[in-house]
Amino acid sequence: MQLFFDPETVAEIGATDQLMRPGHHLFQNLLTSFGERFYPINPRLSKIGSKTCYPNILEVPAEIDVAVVFIPAAAVPDALEQCAKKGVRRVIIESGGFAEVGGKGRRLTERCLAIAREAGMRLWGPNCMGLLNVPRKKILSFMIPMMWQDRLVTGPVSLVVQSGMLSAGFLIHILSRTPFGLAKVCSIGNKVDVDEVDLLEYLVQDPDTGVIAMYLESLSKGRRFFELARAAKKSLVVLKAGRSAYGALAARSHTAALAQDDRVLDAAFRQAGVIRVHDLFEMMDVARSLAVAAGTRTPRSRVAVLTFSGGAGVVCGDGLFDLGLELAELEEATLAKIKTVFPDWMEASNPVDLYPAVEKSGPTEPYRLALEAVMADPGVDAVFVHLFAPPIKMPLFDYEQMAALARRHHKPIVAWVMGHGDTAQDIARELERRGIPVLDEIRKGLRVLAALTARR
Amino acid sequence: MQLFFDPETVAEIGATDQLMRPGHHLFQNLLTSFGERFYPINPRLSKIGSKTCYPNILEVPAEIDVAVVFIPAAAVPDALEQCAKKGVRRVIIESGGFAEVGGKGRRLTERCLAIAREAGMRLWGPNCMGLLNVPRKKILSFMIPMMWQDRLVTGPVSLVVQSGMLSAGFLIHILSRTPFGLAKVCSIGNKVDVDEVDLLEYLVQDPDTGVIAMYLESLSKGRRFFELARAAKKSLVVLKAGRSAYGALAARSHTAALAQDDRVLDAAFRQAGVIRVHDLFEMMDVARSLAVAAGTRTPRSRVAVLTFSGGAGVVCGDGLFDLGLELAELEEATLAKIKTVFPDWMEASNPVDLYPAVEKSGPTEPYRLALEAVMADPGVDAVFVHLFAPPIKMPLFDYEQMAALARRHHKPIVAWVMGHGDTAQDIARELERRGIPVLDEIRKGLRVLAALTARR
Repeated sequence: MQLFFDPETVAEIGATDQLMRPGHHLFQNLLTSFGERFYPINPRLSKIGSKTCYPNILEVPAEIDVAVVFIPAAAVPDALEQCAKKGVRRVIIESGGFAEVGGKGRRLTERCLAIAREAGMRLWGPNCMGLLNVPRKKILSFMIPMMWQDRLVTGPVSLVVQSGMLSAGFLIHILSRTPFGLAKVCSIGNKVDVDEVDLLEYLVQDPDTGVIAMYLESLSKGRRFFELARAAKKSLVVLKAGRSAYGALAARSHTAALAQDDRVLDAAFRQAGVIRVHDLFEMMDVARSLAVAAGTRTPRSRVAVLTFSGGAGVVCGDGLFDLGLELAELEEATLAKIKTVFPDWMEASNPVDLYPAVEKSGPTEPYRLALEAVMADPGVDAVFVHLFAPPIKMPLFDYEQMAALARRHHKPIVAWVMGHGDTAQDIARELERRGIPVLDEIRKGLRVLAALTARR
Repeated sequence: MQLFFDPETVAEIGATDQLMRPGHHLFQNLLTSFGERFYPINPRLSKIGSKTCYPNILEVPAEIDVAVVFIPAAAVPDALEQCAKKGVRRVIIESGGFAEVGGKGRRLTERCLAIAREAGMRLWGPNCMGLLNVPRKKILSFMIPMMWQDRLVTGPVSLVVQSGMLSAGFLIHILSRTPFGLAKVCSIGNKVDVDEVDLLEYLVQDPDTGVIAMYLESLSKGRRFFELARAAKKSLVVLKAGRSAYGALAARSHTAALAQDDRVLDAAFRQAGVIRVHDLFEMMDVARSLAVAAGTRTPRSRVAVLTFSGGAGVVCGDGLFDLGLELAELEEATLAKIKTVFPDWMEASNPVDLYPAVEKSGPTEPYRLALEAVMADPGVDAVFVHLFAPPIKMPLFDYEQMAALARRHHKPIVAWVMGHGDTAQDIARELERRGIPVLDEIRKGLRVLAALTARR
């Protein structure tokens, strides 16, 4: 796998000079990533821009670590024969038109596999977006170049997506919004050879990767997958789609994936300590937050809730219940301490409604004191904190203290920020760079808290 | 109720010159809304800025339609006695410190109620944010003025929130982001007199209101509430919090609300055609979308899905299943028509994966043709369409056709837009102003689709 993600020399079979075609985006990405060590192949072109094109891979005057294939499915077996002759050991087929198109495609797939096995070659794809090695800026994908240039931020989350378009589209979605620290990003498509197990094996030992997020439509080698997951020292977040009758129907026509008994899978995920999610954005919220709050994961979930609004406390209470989290019972000493910032008439309880205290003395002190009290309580495993972003500049929250408390007690804090858009963004930035994940909706925040307090 | 929402003359009991206090925000809002017909009351001030202050309401040289009270709870009964003497028939108490603080507060509440009943006066609150009449720009609330000035957009959604801070904070959250067309917005707090039934009675006949969204922690007069809901010609979206053990616990300390059997409530909501939601943002997504797609609501839910990614189709399939929606069985003629834009190798099925067709001939034609085909299919009640927002300017989707199809067939179309942030915003704007709701996550879109296809 390492050679797929970190090759020195790369060829593109199917490079084109038509600017709007994916084959040209791939050309541009490989040129930017590998410069002189990139060799485009197209029998009808001698040059693309100022870059020399080769009629076939056998003419390339260098050893090739990885060949990326982007030509019609029917022509792929011949290209693979040539790769085999050239001694190429790693091939990524990004074209579609294989098993997902029925009998003819399946026969094509079998021929490709036979050629690869004979030559001791690993095949990646087909029907996929390829891969990005973010720390090394190696982009073996047909993503539109302007979407990743100046936008990729290196970080600990690695992302594996079975579907090609979904991964590219999804990555564009992520990259054009919040900065999101990524390590390895790839789509595996029909996975005729390289599959999620190969990738999991690679990513669990990859030093760039801290959290692994996977979108899968099928799990081909369940036993090995769950062994790896159980042994992994890293958090693993999985969106296994096609779990319902409708989803399975759609998966069959998409990546030729076969449905599996989802209840069996679900139990296996739980036993292996895999965090299972059900939507793409939930997957990324959870993966990002696990990376942000690295080191505060805890196996119990008695939650203290600090809110800026009694109503938010009620909605949070229902949300905790739905997600199977516990509302912590606070000790008398904790409640007594909290009561010192409350108006006289008010009793303390969990959820802790800080609004009357804030009305009395501003946000900083009540939050500081209440957070210190609940974090020190031995009956509390994690804290959900609701912060309000006012439309005016004023002293708000003691971010340093929040971060120090999370580290000292090894208990996750998750923040839900509501209020004015600009201020909310500032608060989120301050907190996330100090290791406290911030979500903009109650349910999202509670979902992240559930992941951070899940048994491994 | 009309007089509460549309008074001519207003007094504020508890006006203050301290700029950062809620009582001053309220002063500013009332001054902006009512000008000379606003009368601030404070025995310690003769003027606030250039505005004359009165020592008590009896000194005000005009009849007062609504008095807004913002003074400590203990002083409220005396202020009410004076209002009664003055002949004020509508009083909004925005201060807290009543039933939610225990026995002393309950006794205060009872005194206030006795005074009001004796005088034939209606009481609103206490412990609430007051109200906004958006079309008339009358703001009887302590919201920070800069949050609503130049931001309120008139539209058909009316919002009732039991919790005070939550409604103010939530409104700031909404207003600083997407424009959101609002009619009447209010919080009812402890609802010692005016309650959700009074408001529902008013809003179902209010010509400014098209969709009613309510956040409630308790339902005091269930029978009447459900009668009104059943008879209403308008969509009603309800977030009833405090439904779980934890939520109920939090609600009791917040607005002194008592827990009710949630299963009984849930059945009653369903029978009355009320759309029940479980998160604040879900409530607003659904309410906004019902307003956007007014006139396309339908009572069946056989859904056609058009996607830009096979993977998205799989996730959508699972989501439809979870929400109890049906995946439509498309007629042969519909499938044959769709197949004309597909590459030869590809079979048509629902979800309709348009990516290969788009790769072949760009997005406009495949989407136009497929949408026309599924909308005309008698086995389809609604369409979920996944649109991709590319990072470059190019011809995308035929918005006019989409809107025309929704109108002609009276079938809702809901769009999920993924991809580049700026382009996605443009697409959303074009679609929403033509009556097609746009959501940025699959689950949110499907939730909205479920509301638009719910039995009334």
